[in-house]
Amino acid sequence: MLKNDRLLRALRRERLDRPPVWLMRQAGRYLPEYLRVRKQAGDFMSLCRTPELCCEVAMQPIERFNLDSAILFSDILTIPDAMGLGLSFAENHGPQFAKRIETVRDIESLPVIDPNDSLGYVMQAVQTTKAALSNTVPLIGFSGSPWTLATYMIEGGSSRTFSRSKSLIYSEPPAADKLLDLLADNVIAYLKAQVEAGADVLMVFDTWGGVLTRACYQRFSLAPMQKIVHAIAKSCPTVPVILFTKGGGAWLEDLVNTGCAGLGLDWTCDISSAVERVGDQVALQGNLDPGALYGTPERIEQETLQILKAYNNKPGHIFNLGHGIEPGVEPEKVKVAVDAVLSFRYN
Amino acid sequence: MLKNDRLLRALRRERLDRPPVWLMRQAGRYLPEYLRVRKQAGDFMSLCRTPELCCEVAMQPIERFNLDSAILFSDILTIPDAMGLGLSFAENHGPQFAKRIETVRDIESLPVIDPNDSLGYVMQAVQTTKAALSNTVPLIGFSGSPWTLATYMIEGGSSRTFSRSKSLIYSEPPAADKLLDLLADNVIAYLKAQVEAGADVLMVFDTWGGVLTRACYQRFSLAPMQKIVHAIAKSCPTVPVILFTKGGGAWLEDLVNTGCAGLGLDWTCDISSAVERVGDQVALQGNLDPGALYGTPERIEQETLQILKAYNNKPGHIFNLGHGIEPGVEPEKVKVAVDAVLSFRYN
Repeated sequence: MLKNDRLLRALRRERLDRPPVWLMRQAGRYLPEYLRVRKQAGDFMSLCRTPELCCEVAMQPIERFNLDSAILFSDILTIPDAMGLGLSFAENHGPQFAKRIETVRDIESLPVIDPNDSLGYVMQAVQTTKAALSNTVPLIGFSGSPWTLATYMIEGGSSRTFSRSKSLIYSEPPAADKLLDLLADNVIAYLKAQVEAGADVLMVFDTWGGVLTRACYQRFSLAPMQKIVHAIAKSCPTVPVILFTKGGGAWLEDLVNTGCAGLGLDWTCDISSAVERVGDQVALQGNLDPGALYGTPERIEQETLQILKAYNNKPGHIFNLGHGIEPGVEPEKVKVAVDAVLSFRYN
Repeated sequence: MLKNDRLLRALRRERLDRPPVWLMRQAGRYLPEYLRVRKQAGDFMSLCRTPELCCEVAMQPIERFNLDSAILFSDILTIPDAMGLGLSFAENHGPQFAKRIETVRDIESLPVIDPNDSLGYVMQAVQTTKAALSNTVPLIGFSGSPWTLATYMIEGGSSRTFSRSKSLIYSEPPAADKLLDLLADNVIAYLKAQVEAGADVLMVFDTWGGVLTRACYQRFSLAPMQKIVHAIAKSCPTVPVILFTKGGGAWLEDLVNTGCAGLGLDWTCDISSAVERVGDQVALQGNLDPGALYGTPERIEQETLQILKAYNNKPGHIFNLGHGIEPGVEPEKVKVAVDAVLSFRYN
């Protein structure tokens, strides 16, 4: 049904002529056309809450770069906002919550969400974007991972040391389990609703799993993601799930064991080693250093080709960055990387 | 000559009754006695520039916890300050440089330093602390790694994305090589002067090597550290060097190949795997999650014992945290971890 289902076929590790390409944060501040819509919307959350504008910015990079997939335009923190914590973004600042989780009682009073109600604006963005794509390329839906959502809810925003989150997991681990289990349930409901609204692929962004020890990662980040993968496999068996733990290069085997279809790799992970370790069990997505996009065009092409070749003609590669595109990058530089993938052919 | 040379013997991988213990940032803001001296000194750099006060704060944790090593009290960014960039610390803020490296010409005009001249205050701190220790335990001297120094010099302070540093290495790699080579030479001179002033062990803190791809890490962080290890081995053959790349768990084999005596491990690195990978070639230092010190005393003891036992009775372990003690930690919690090591015995 999709005109270009390259991404779905790569996730099934079918042999292709070239890998599909999309880029984390492909709709974003580096694009002048995005900045115009962003200005029109007012603040960032107003943009996220206006399905037509979400659709417009999600389509912009597809039209500009000829990418193999679109991704829902939204924020990873919509779930805690829907749980009543009050998300906002001050200009040139990270996310901030009006309330944060301070006590075990705060955790106990957190609600189960109905995503079609409190996050209806996200579902409308999925529907609108899916319609605008007219089955040209797939649409990726997504959520933050339970652990990543929990850190923002506990810290009240971004953090360098995650001291409050660490304090919870090391001093009240059963309360942390409870919080993460509730978040897993809310993520499951959210992702299922996105599939019902039209998402073809799902991705879970575990931005902060990499700040944990392996034992804490397994208990507080991997286990809730495992629950999500199982639930999606049961209720939406045809929808592939991609997991991405930034800084999780040491734990690829653990991630593969969840049964996910794809793994996102950050740029610090050597992709040729990753293919050897887990490449026959899962598709791998990545992993150009987002900072390489500050390089010369020649260098960007060279770095892109190096990653493509490191796959050694095996199936199951989805080209991407190792993290989101940074706001200071020139769109022309992004095009160099994308074009290098589009014109690449496996031997 | 040293009454307690447990650290030196662990670095030679001799069999001991228990591993030595010291803690990164053991002299610091979590100690009320430190905060008193810090207040007396005025700003942070004035503290660093007053050898008697550096000595006083370096001795504080030794007196409080019965640790197996002292470490010079200073900052990792003294070298760029001595190179004329003007280091300062605003209250509750990270380091800031008055000037930053913006062009290739800026790199070309950077000076070679004479550490006994422009960093004489550090050498006096080494001498004063060494005298105060009266050969009870060794004194560790240290420097930031060339790459870590370079990032602060290029960004002008702390960074989340290191976009300016990435821009330099991806667009002007030969200029980056030149900067890093000069920094390696300055670090070598600095560390040699610390040995002459009395340092028994040297440690290189590569705080930001982990933000690089493996290829960039090898060229821009590892190669200059390699140069340092070689130079120290040649001019101070009895002085062991410990390298610590935060986020460098995937590259332990590369680090071992420098010929260093010890490797610092951050808390995300599984220490039992690290021992299997490189434990017969090098001593390993680490790696309790600094966030574990927010846990209950029982949990802290349990986490500490888990790390001690993961070594599986092999020689060459130096107990430490996986990163510095955070300011919000209670000294009594630190004592729980230290005491667990002091009373531990190998089978």
